[in-house]
Amino acid sequence: MAKHSKTPTALYEKDGVKQPDSVNQSVAQNVKQFRRKQPSANELVEGILKGDKIALSRAITLIESTNTEHLDKANEVIQGCLPHANQSVRIGITGVPGVGKSTFIEAFGKYLTAIGKKVAVLAVDPSSSISHGSILGDKTRMEELVKDENAYIRPSASGDSLGGVARKTRETIILCEACGFDTIIIETVGVGQSETAVHSMVDFFLLLKIAGAGDELQGIKRGIMEMADTIVINKADGDNIAKAKLAKTEFNRALHLFPAKNSGWTPKVTTCSAYEKTGIDQVWQIIADYFELTKENQYFEHKRQEQNQYWMLETINEQLKNRFYSHPEIKILLEQNKKAVQNNEISPFAAAQILLEKYFK
Amino acid sequence: MAKHSKTPTALYEKDGVKQPDSVNQSVAQNVKQFRRKQPSANELVEGILKGDKIALSRAITLIESTNTEHLDKANEVIQGCLPHANQSVRIGITGVPGVGKSTFIEAFGKYLTAIGKKVAVLAVDPSSSISHGSILGDKTRMEELVKDENAYIRPSASGDSLGGVARKTRETIILCEACGFDTIIIETVGVGQSETAVHSMVDFFLLLKIAGAGDELQGIKRGIMEMADTIVINKADGDNIAKAKLAKTEFNRALHLFPAKNSGWTPKVTTCSAYEKTGIDQVWQIIADYFELTKENQYFEHKRQEQNQYWMLETINEQLKNRFYSHPEIKILLEQNKKAVQNNEISPFAAAQILLEKYFK
Repeated sequence: MAKHSKTPTALYEKDGVKQPDSVNQSVAQNVKQFRRKQPSANELVEGILKGDKIALSRAITLIESTNTEHLDKANEVIQGCLPHANQSVRIGITGVPGVGKSTFIEAFGKYLTAIGKKVAVLAVDPSSSISHGSILGDKTRMEELVKDENAYIRPSASGDSLGGVARKTRETIILCEACGFDTIIIETVGVGQSETAVHSMVDFFLLLKIAGAGDELQGIKRGIMEMADTIVINKADGDNIAKAKLAKTEFNRALHLFPAKNSGWTPKVTTCSAYEKTGIDQVWQIIADYFELTKENQYFEHKRQEQNQYWMLETINEQLKNRFYSHPEIKILLEQNKKAVQNNEISPFAAAQILLEKYFK
Repeated sequence: MAKHSKTPTALYEKDGVKQPDSVNQSVAQNVKQFRRKQPSANELVEGILKGDKIALSRAITLIESTNTEHLDKANEVIQGCLPHANQSVRIGITGVPGVGKSTFIEAFGKYLTAIGKKVAVLAVDPSSSISHGSILGDKTRMEELVKDENAYIRPSASGDSLGGVARKTRETIILCEACGFDTIIIETVGVGQSETAVHSMVDFFLLLKIAGAGDELQGIKRGIMEMADTIVINKADGDNIAKAKLAKTEFNRALHLFPAKNSGWTPKVTTCSAYEKTGIDQVWQIIADYFELTKENQYFEHKRQEQNQYWMLETINEQLKNRFYSHPEIKILLEQNKKAVQNNEISPFAAAQILLEKYFK
């Protein structure tokens, strides 16, 4: 061992310096204070009913949480907001990427706030958890609307299943309504199963198209066109106007061949340019006409009741299936039976019976 | 008491005659013999594979039975037929009442047997248990086809649920195929959910329409038109020919607006008169073209595999739901929660959670 000496040598050891505390006490103090300030469910409800967007955002975050404690609190908030919800119109907007959904929603939303509406824009996009929020993820795509005091924009909840995302969105609608938003816009991308989910949570369904696009762009999921209460042909500007008018005639003719809707409403086709902000008023006029009709013939209320029932039963059915298909023994047996069915060794019904007997025994 | 005397008086009593046995012994003997002659599952399979229509009918009756013993035997028969099934084309035909489905199927079926096909006609009509067999119930509507040696007509199985009827029909298809029928026609009426079921068990879906009918007659269920691989406009005869041609143009235009099908097939529109037996060959040509395309691009096999998987999973999901919703405690709790949801006292998701916790606890 080298003896300490005043002469610096390679073996000289400096006295240790006290390492800083691994916890920054002043930051910790702040965090604790912030935590203490986390509002209670009651405080959140109060804030939401007063129209406080920050309380609204916090409550939605609870809805989106996977933490059980948060979910209990979220349920309390929803319960508190329920009696104040339902006073709104809910509009679903779909269209494949490229038809200009963001631009349209910005123009449409600004038009609505200008005529005195309070607009909340939500999105259903189960794929966003993978693609990291393709829809509304980038709020800057709606620059003006996001700054509008009477608008509230919330990106799609992420989630591993459409059912989960749908639940979160449905509950977010309740909170937005309780917060005083009277026009709820739900955006979705026209390529998956999410349209059916959105169709089941809105009063009015708007399909956005553009004229003269190739099959690829028009390649919206089968059945979507029949869901539409209106088809809006966007980008009807400049050289596109003639094409858009032609498309309008064609879609009108096609819609005519569809059976009548339970709502008593005949779907309308219109053109607009979200970019030039033309035709937006006609879009709103169509929607307003629809609400006048369906509130008078009581279809509006009827449909909401039906939707509520639907979501209750759908949630149950989803859970029943999840329990079954995630059962470890069933998983193995299912794979075996899938193969047997594929090879025509067993009928699909006999295979199902084997699995069910195993599960319920 | 009157004393017996040779003189007939009002009080004269004849000796009693021995009453006949309440069981007719010779009939009983016949019944016993018939029972003893009930073929075994193996005998039925043998008969079916030989093309014996009586064995086929008997086996189908077993499939349709609610007796557990019969069902076990039915499963044995299906199991025995499975390796010999699948060698056929399966064609679904739908159209609302009034478009002339029976007349069309008779003309189409006769055309097929004339070109050497063996045709089985089945029906899916879950309502037939209530209306006592509206579809094909009256075989006399297909007078000629029913007498055709190369045709086999079987009315819809009755049943309390679409799921049940669908299962029976699917299994009947297997038996018909094993019996040598190479063209299976499944008829359904275009007003309920049965189209989706039929669409999931056939290779090709034909929608029958007529020209110039009011909305009521054209009022086929939403989404059916998108399922169609061909639209056939029937009753194109006499004064109707011009109208039928116009309708053809319109439907062609409408179909053009639908997205492309996974099969790679572009749906075709054609006209015919089942009554005058014109245009039937074109209908078959379209179907033959479809099969040529989809067998080449392997969509045909792919779709059958998918359908097998679908029916296995669908049967499981139905059973999971049936168990839940028929649970006595759940039934009561469900009614309570339905009301609470209706009155906006609870969110549909919270209500579902309450029910699920009860069920799984």
